[in-house]
Amino acid sequence: MSLVVVGSVAFDSIKTPHGEVHEALGGSAVHFALASRFFEDTQLVGVVGADFPEQNRKLLADCGIDLAGLEVVPDGKTFRWSGEYFDEMNRRETLSVDLNVLESFDPKLPDSYRDSRFVFLANGAPVTQLSVLDQMNGSPFTMADTMNLWIQIARDELESLLRRIDGLVLNDEEAFLLADTKNMIKAGRFIADKFDLEILVIKKGEHGCLVFRDGQEINLPALPLAEVVDPTGAGDSFAGGLMGYLAQQNATDLDTFKRAVAWGTVLASFCCEGYSVDRVAKLDWAEVQERFRVYQGMLDLGLEAKVS
Amino acid sequence: MSLVVVGSVAFDSIKTPHGEVHEALGGSAVHFALASRFFEDTQLVGVVGADFPEQNRKLLADCGIDLAGLEVVPDGKTFRWSGEYFDEMNRRETLSVDLNVLESFDPKLPDSYRDSRFVFLANGAPVTQLSVLDQMNGSPFTMADTMNLWIQIARDELESLLRRIDGLVLNDEEAFLLADTKNMIKAGRFIADKFDLEILVIKKGEHGCLVFRDGQEINLPALPLAEVVDPTGAGDSFAGGLMGYLAQQNATDLDTFKRAVAWGTVLASFCCEGYSVDRVAKLDWAEVQERFRVYQGMLDLGLEAKVS
Repeated sequence: MSLVVVGSVAFDSIKTPHGEVHEALGGSAVHFALASRFFEDTQLVGVVGADFPEQNRKLLADCGIDLAGLEVVPDGKTFRWSGEYFDEMNRRETLSVDLNVLESFDPKLPDSYRDSRFVFLANGAPVTQLSVLDQMNGSPFTMADTMNLWIQIARDELESLLRRIDGLVLNDEEAFLLADTKNMIKAGRFIADKFDLEILVIKKGEHGCLVFRDGQEINLPALPLAEVVDPTGAGDSFAGGLMGYLAQQNATDLDTFKRAVAWGTVLASFCCEGYSVDRVAKLDWAEVQERFRVYQGMLDLGLEAKVS
Repeated sequence: MSLVVVGSVAFDSIKTPHGEVHEALGGSAVHFALASRFFEDTQLVGVVGADFPEQNRKLLADCGIDLAGLEVVPDGKTFRWSGEYFDEMNRRETLSVDLNVLESFDPKLPDSYRDSRFVFLANGAPVTQLSVLDQMNGSPFTMADTMNLWIQIARDELESLLRRIDGLVLNDEEAFLLADTKNMIKAGRFIADKFDLEILVIKKGEHGCLVFRDGQEINLPALPLAEVVDPTGAGDSFAGGLMGYLAQQNATDLDTFKRAVAWGTVLASFCCEGYSVDRVAKLDWAEVQERFRVYQGMLDLGLEAKVS
C-alpha cells in the first residue's frame, strides 16, 4: 500500500505578528507528505527549479518521502509564495505569488506510483489534478483540496474534477463560494449532492471541521492551541494525517474516517507550532501518539465508566 | 436537591430573515428553566409586570418550574427586548430594550429556595446577581453568565461577582472584551486565573464551546443544524441543560461536567429550532435523549471497538 500526493513544493515567505521567515520550505504537497509519512509510504508528485537546495530534498528524503515524482526543471525557478497573518492569525493576506515552474507543470507519474490505492490531489490547478488522476491505474480512493482561485478562474475544470473524486476537503470560505450560501450545512449538502461526493470535509480552522458523510453531518473540534506560530500548511497537514491513516488502515468507513480526522487534527496542531515545516519535520511518533490521546480524551464523555 | 436561577423574564420581539414574532415569551431565566427542568426541579427568581399573561405563567408552571420567586409588580410593565438577526443568524442587532420592572428589580428569595445547592445567575445586572447569592444559605455551587453591557458599565460589581462564583459562562466576544485579547485561549486563561474560577466556558455559537478546567482546555463541538429558526435563548438553554445535569448528578467533576456540556449542547440545539420557547417548551424527554445519543455518537471515535 502507498499514498500518492500531488501539489506544490514552494519557498514560503511568511510574516506574523511574532516574526517572519524568508523562502522557507513549504507547499501543499510538502506539508501533506510530512504528515502522511507517519502512517503510510508517501509518493510525492511536484516540480521545483534548479534553485531547490539539496538540503530540502534531503530533509524530505530523510523523512521517508518518495521523491521519484519530484521533477526538477533545470532552467526554472521554484514556486514562491508570500503572505502575512493578522488578527491573532485569523486573517491572512497573500502578498505575492510567483508561479515559476508551477505555471507549466505537466506531471508525469513514475510507474512505481501508478498502482497506489490512495491519492490526494492537494491544492493546485484542476488540470494538473486531473492529469494525475488520469495516470493512475484502476480506481484509487481519491480526495482533493482546492482554493478560491480555482473556483473563480477554472470552475469548469474544477467541476469535472469534483465529479471524479471520492472526497473533497476545503475550508469554510471556499465552501461558501462554491455553493453560493453562507450557511455551512446547506453549503456542504449542496456540494456533496451536486458532485456526488462520498465525503466532504469543511475545515473551520481553530473551530475544527465539519464532515458530510452518509447523509450525516459530524462536527469535530480542533485542539485548543495557545500559541499559533504559523498556520501555513495546517490544512495540508490535516489532510496528510487524514489520508495517511486511511491508507494505512486501507479503509474508508465512517468510524475509520472519524479517527482519520482526529489524526489529521493532531498533525495540523503540530504544524501551527512552528514556522514552515520546522515542527512537523522534526516530530517523533511518540509525540504524535501522545497528542492523539489528548484529543481522544477531550472527546471522551466517559459514558462507559459512569452511565450505562 | 433543586436548582435556583435568577434572570430576566421577557417579551421578545424577534426578526429573522425567515420571519418574526412580536412580544413572545423569552428572557434568560425562562430559557434556562425550560431546559434545566428536564434534569432538576428548578426555582425561578425574576420579575414581571401586571401585563404578564396568565397563559405564560401556566406554560412555565405546567413545565414544572417553581414560580414562587417570580415577583409581579402590579403597576409595572414586563421587560421587553427586540432584536434582528442577519447573515445566516451569525450577527444580531438589538433594536430596543425597555427594562421596565427589571430596572428596579430587587430579588427576594422565598425561604424554600435558599437551601438549593446549585445556583445559576443568568445574564442580568451584577448587583442583582450578587443579591441572590447573598440570600442563599451555605455555599451552593454557583455559575453565572454576563454580557458586554455589564462588562462596560458595571465592571466593578461584575468583578466582585466573578470572585465569588465557581464558574462563568460567556460568549467569545464577551471573553475578548473582558480579557482585552482576541486570542480565545489566552482570554480564557486570563479570566479563569484573574478571578480564580474553577470553571470557565466560552460559548462559540455554531462552533460549540471551549471549557477551561483544571488547567486544561477542552473544545466540544455544537450539533450541526441546517435550519436555525431563532437562536435567541440558545445560550441560556445551554446553561440550563448544563446546570440541570450537574444538579441532578450532584457532582461537578470533569467527566460529569463534560456530559453536562453535552446535555447543554443538545438543549441549545432544540432552542434554535423554533421561535421564542416554542420548541423547548413542547419537547419531550425521549427527543432529548435521542439527540444526546446523536451527539455522543458524533464524538465517538469508535476506539474501544476498533483499536485497543
